[in-house]
Amino acid sequence: MVTEYTVERVKSGIQGFDDLIEGGFPKGTTVLVTGPTGSGKTTFGVQFVYKGAELYDEPGVIVTLEERSRDLRREMLAFGWDIGKYEREGKIAIIDGVSAVVGLPSEEQYVLEGNLNAEDFLRYVYRVVKAINAKRLVIDSIPSIAFRLKKEEEIRSVLLQFNTILLEMGVTSILTTEAPDPSRGKISRYGIEEYIARGVILLDFVEKEVELKRYLLIRKMRETKHSMKKYPFEINENGIVVYPSGELY
Amino acid sequence: MVTEYTVERVKSGIQGFDDLIEGGFPKGTTVLVTGPTGSGKTTFGVQFVYKGAELYDEPGVIVTLEERSRDLRREMLAFGWDIGKYEREGKIAIIDGVSAVVGLPSEEQYVLEGNLNAEDFLRYVYRVVKAINAKRLVIDSIPSIAFRLKKEEEIRSVLLQFNTILLEMGVTSILTTEAPDPSRGKISRYGIEEYIARGVILLDFVEKEVELKRYLLIRKMRETKHSMKKYPFEINENGIVVYPSGELY
Amino acid sequence: MVTEYTVERVKSGIQGFDDLIEGGFPKGTTVLVTGPTGSGKTTFGVQFVYKGAELYDEPGVIVTLEERSRDLRREMLAFGWDIGKYEREGKIAIIDGVSAVVGLPSEEQYVLEGNLNAEDFLRYVYRVVKAINAKRLVIDSIPSIAFRLKKEEEIRSVLLQFNTILLEMGVTSILTTEAPDPSRGKISRYGIEEYIARGVILLDFVEKEVELKRYLLIRKMRETKHSMKKYPFEINENGIVVYPSGELY
Amino acid sequence: MVTEYTVERVKSGIQGFDDLIEGGFPKGTTVLVTGPTGSGKTTFGVQFVYKGAELYDEPGVIVTLEERSRDLRREMLAFGWDIGKYEREGKIAIIDGVSAVVGLPSEEQYVLEGNLNAEDFLRYVYRVVKAINAKRLVIDSIPSIAFRLKKEEEIRSVLLQFNTILLEMGVTSILTTEAPDPSRGKISRYGIEEYIARGVILLDFVEKEVELKRYLLIRKMRETKHSMKKYPFEINENGIVVYPSGELY
Amino acid sequence: MVTEYTVERVKSGIQGFDDLIEGGFPKGTTVLVTGPTGSGKTTFGVQFVYKGAELYDEPGVIVTLEERSRDLRREMLAFGWDIGKYEREGKIAIIDGVSAVVGLPSEEQYVLEGNLNAEDFLRYVYRVVKAINAKRLVIDSIPSIAFRLKKEEEIRSVLLQFNTILLEMGVTSILTTEAPDPSRGKISRYGIEEYIARGVILLDFVEKEVELKRYLLIRKMRETKHSMKKYPFEINENGIVVYPSGELY
Amino acid sequence: MVTEYTVERVKSGIQGFDDLIEGGFPKGTTVLVTGPTGSGKTTFGVQFVYKGAELYDEPGVIVTLEERSRDLRREMLAFGWDIGKYEREGKIAIIDGVSAVVGLPSEEQYVLEGNLNAEDFLRYVYRVVKAINAKRLVIDSIPSIAFRLKKEEEIRSVLLQFNTILLEMGVTSILTTEAPDPSRGKISRYGIEEYIARGVILLDFVEKEVELKRYLLIRKMRETKHSMKKYPFEINENGIVVYPSGELY
Repeated sequence: MVTEYTVERVKSGIQGFDDLIEGGFPKGTTVLVTGPTGSGKTTFGVQFVYKGAELYDEPGVIVTLEERSRDLRREMLAFGWDIGKYEREGKIAIIDGVSAVVGLPSEEQYVLEGNLNAEDFLRYVYRVVKAINAKRLVIDSIPSIAFRLKKEEEIRSVLLQFNTILLEMGVTSILTTEAPDPSRGKISRYGIEEYIARGVILLDFVEKEVELKRYLLIRKMRETKHSMKKYPFEINENGIVVYPSGELY
Repeated sequence: MVTEYTVERVKSGIQGFDDLIEGGFPKGTTVLVTGPTGSGKTTFGVQFVYKGAELYDEPGVIVTLEERSRDLRREMLAFGWDIGKYEREGKIAIIDGVSAVVGLPSEEQYVLEGNLNAEDFLRYVYRVVKAINAKRLVIDSIPSIAFRLKKEEEIRSVLLQFNTILLEMGVTSILTTEAPDPSRGKISRYGIEEYIARGVILLDFVEKEVELKRYLLIRKMRETKHSMKKYPFEINENGIVVYPSGELY
Repeated sequence: MVTEYTVERVKSGIQGFDDLIEGGFPKGTTVLVTGPTGSGKTTFGVQFVYKGAELYDEPGVIVTLEERSRDLRREMLAFGWDIGKYEREGKIAIIDGVSAVVGLPSEEQYVLEGNLNAEDFLRYVYRVVKAINAKRLVIDSIPSIAFRLKKEEEIRSVLLQFNTILLEMGVTSILTTEAPDPSRGKISRYGIEEYIARGVILLDFVEKEVELKRYLLIRKMRETKHSMKKYPFEINENGIVVYPSGELY
Repeated sequence: MVTEYTVERVKSGIQGFDDLIEGGFPKGTTVLVTGPTGSGKTTFGVQFVYKGAELYDEPGVIVTLEERSRDLRREMLAFGWDIGKYEREGKIAIIDGVSAVVGLPSEEQYVLEGNLNAEDFLRYVYRVVKAINAKRLVIDSIPSIAFRLKKEEEIRSVLLQFNTILLEMGVTSILTTEAPDPSRGKISRYGIEEYIARGVILLDFVEKEVELKRYLLIRKMRETKHSMKKYPFEINENGIVVYPSGELY
Repeated sequence: MVTEYTVERVKSGIQGFDDLIEGGFPKGTTVLVTGPTGSGKTTFGVQFVYKGAELYDEPGVIVTLEERSRDLRREMLAFGWDIGKYEREGKIAIIDGVSAVVGLPSEEQYVLEGNLNAEDFLRYVYRVVKAINAKRLVIDSIPSIAFRLKKEEEIRSVLLQFNTILLEMGVTSILTTEAPDPSRGKISRYGIEEYIARGVILLDFVEKEVELKRYLLIRKMRETKHSMKKYPFEINENGIVVYPSGELY
Repeated sequence: MVTEYTVERVKSGIQGFDDLIEGGFPKGTTVLVTGPTGSGKTTFGVQFVYKGAELYDEPGVIVTLEERSRDLRREMLAFGWDIGKYEREGKIAIIDGVSAVVGLPSEEQYVLEGNLNAEDFLRYVYRVVKAINAKRLVIDSIPSIAFRLKKEEEIRSVLLQFNTILLEMGVTSILTTEAPDPSRGKISRYGIEEYIARGVILLDFVEKEVELKRYLLIRKMRETKHSMKKYPFEINENGIVVYPSGELY
């Protein structure tokens, strides 16, 4: 007799998106969000954590290595997202990976040391996740971690350790990376990111006449039936909105 | 006088596929299943082992380096495949190559050590194959082995040893790897995987309008007459189904 | 209650451009201007600083590593921009990164030492910014910094330090770099410049018949709604003029 | 007075092929057969040796580095070729380059040592050629030799020595290699194989609709007038058959 | 009040060309002439110096690293240019960078030493420029300098020093280099040449039917308004002639 | 007054070709013949030397590194060229660069040592040229020299020395090399061969339907007016024949 089978789903908080993946990410899954510069990866990741706190009462951690915490907070206000409010309620924690790099003082609660050491980094993230009992995690971005390592190639072993720790923590996570040339099969900067992720979402552009149009493509999502269509999406005053029935061309 | 000649065939368990290769894989053959992220390689390999146990009473071993055993088990339930049942009957063994990498405890029966050493790895797989008298084997995936080696380039010599041991064991095996750019002739990540395999199957996509369509192409299959056509396939609630008479475009 | 949210905007001084980015750059932002040789990056950067002094009474610093200060001054006269005048008023400072490289005497007030050392370079720029209380900064260009380092690869760590110092200084900055192959996703020479910038503007060409047409594309601009269209622009007697409603083809 | 000139021709045994090259390979020539995975290189080479023994009473040696001797024998039975029969008659010798690599026992008469050393390898092949007075030789494949060397780059000097020894032996030889991207001029894996061969034959595919069609192209054949056309060919129950008047598209 | 602004122009001596750049090169500018083999770079550079002496009474120096002085002299006679005459009058000096490389005797007045040392090379050119009070300089070519350095990569620092010395000397200079793939953005062999030049001119070909057509494109010219059109040009009995109103296709 | 100017021409001996280059190669010129495998480079070079001896009574030297002297002699008989006859008359000398590489005995008069040393190689060629008072020289091929050097990169300095010695000897020479991807600007294997040659001739193919058509393109020829057209050519029973008025497509 086959065991009764249901996959617990985690709502993404991305409007129009959950319909494409049977209602949400499989709980505990690590999802890679990849794409070129300006494709909306940061917004996607933060929206996932913010909406988790706002709509589903799930605490979440944001590890920001491209923007300072305060810049990120301010930027997200444009979507009407008041991260600070949930931080004060202990529902969101931002780990600032930018400010302290060369020894600037930071008033943030969670700050990464300047000298990024793989073990310390992982341990720190682990601790903050546990501290607020986070169910959601976004790390923005993998290349920004790699740049801060002594040798960029060490990112390989960092990612492998990462994989195990993420599985251990049980959080549903989004990692962002860069897709250098999606049309030629290069969907991650280091060629390994997709191996530690159970889902891969590509945010990219197609040029139509002289305009770049945004689209989203689900390249992989384990335990989930999903189409392989390129869906148009927008970044508007509510954040990312996917149009499952929209026309890309 | 020419010796009477018949090739013993091993049913793949992939619906619609065996018709394309004279009824099944030549017994004892190593087959490379290659393709980009999300193309269905893991499902193809697990289906081969699962259906072997379920339909043909042939024990099989799954070496999983991308997913933990328990994730794989749960994921496969979506196709109605209860791997655990056959594990308990001693017909399937999963070797977990993920959990123990950084020293997490594992309740699995078969677990790879954290420090992947080529000789130990091969010996361990060999032992499990012998323990359950396996006729089928899938290793998912070659890049995931390579990432765990001290130097990624050592995968070359690991694969050469692999080749010999697989021949020695007499199992019919599927190895999965990554095809970085099939249209430009790069059908394997390390450029050597296809040299140790007697069959090469490509799972890939073509874009039709704004949708990626799955197809399967048999690039090589020794002792077997096969067409060189791109066949459409689906991953549905029964796993992989190939449509030999379907239209790709 | 959501905090009242307004982004303070810094007028670019580029005619026709501010309309595309909600009125100007977000204050304190670092913007990467990238493109091939001859695409107008230097003019874009200098115009930003010059117009800041001329129209908005904001002091600015120009770090020039491709042209000597005096060449730059003379060149900009073609647009009717008398940089010297604002230098005398203490509203613009040019840091000459070319003249002294092999020990030539320079009559400039601000001159970089021949042996470019990352820390000294950053400290020097910092000091000049503070000396004139600059609100705007342009550094032309990142590859020219890299060429002057002992090892070109050190540009990676220089840029990471840069990032922090720019954030610290609070100036709105433009950095220029080279886009080797924008159509294939390579929008910066070292593949890291875009990670330290909150905005990325591409200046590039399309060939129409036998003529190259200039266009501008905003690839990223945090805290800003912007279109992803390729806008035609010209370099005429007034500097750069963008045509938001122009036809590229 | 010009010396009377006739080139002695060696029948290839490939149906339909000799007509394209003035009746056969120039005697003593080394011919490179190149192409992607699954293009039929092994079959081409073995057919050359097998038909030599069967039809022209010329002994031949097969050096197999991709398949074990016994697999090769069995596989060729599919074409009705009983290699074992000619081995027993001393007309064909197979040198097994796979079995002994990691120390497995082999019942084969001719077995390469596990540690492939360039000098020993060449000497061994030389000895077997002399032992059966071989007129034909196939080595399948050059990359498989290279993988077994300590450093893959040593294949360069191995090939140069090879060249001299082949010339010395006077056999007509086929070497197989891989053509990574024939349409872009890369017709051999190491970029040197074509320099030691007096003939180069490309076996490749063109895609027609969703099917790959096989074709053969003679890129070089010294002392021979040949067309530069892409000829369709098949691998059917008789081995390789070339269609000089067939239509490829 | 804006300073009165006029750019002093140096006539190029290239027929039809000065109209494209407001009457000539800005005085003291370094111009890079780039293009593939056989595109006319040497002729362009020599014509610039020769016409300077012939028509504008400006002394000039030719540094030739691809051709011996005497070959260059003879070759230019085909255009009716008698360089020797102006050498005797002290208006042109050729520095021979080929003859002495392996210690051949040379009857030339200006000869580079065999062992090319960056400092000595620059000092030597400097001295000859001063000796004849040159206003024009052509160096043909940068790759030929690089090949003669101990390590080709040292060309980077040589070019940076070059830049400063050229600025110091006040001559208007042409440097030639190779454009490996202009259509993909690679307009210089070492990726740095364009950074030390205030102007970049591309000489290239387009294929029209089975013929290569020459064209000239001004990619960059500081202090100068220029079109970005591809202009057809010829090399006829008068040297290079550009057709500003010609049709390329 | 302009010196009277005439370029002494050396007949190529290639039928139909001299009309394209004002009657022949400029005397003393080094010409690079480049193209892919099987494009006819060897035939072009040998024809140049053979016809020199046969028709113009000019002695010539052939340095053969891809074929043994005796193979080359036999091969050329197919065109009715009896090289041996002119060798006996002291009008042609073949230097065998293949036979002795691994110490095989050679009955040839001129044999290169196995261990190819740059200085010795150049000195040897020089000596043979002087011995028969050669006016023509072909070296087939540059990559074959490079493969025989300890480090392939040393070919750079060998070619630079070569250049000087060829100029010194005063012979008209043809060097052959490989053009990896002519359509993308790569017309020589090492990217330096074209710098030491005063002429560059490309022999290549275009595909027309399923057939490769041969064409010849003169990319560079100093002191010579030549068209930039792709001319069809054939290799028939008389060697290479160029069709200046033929249709390529």
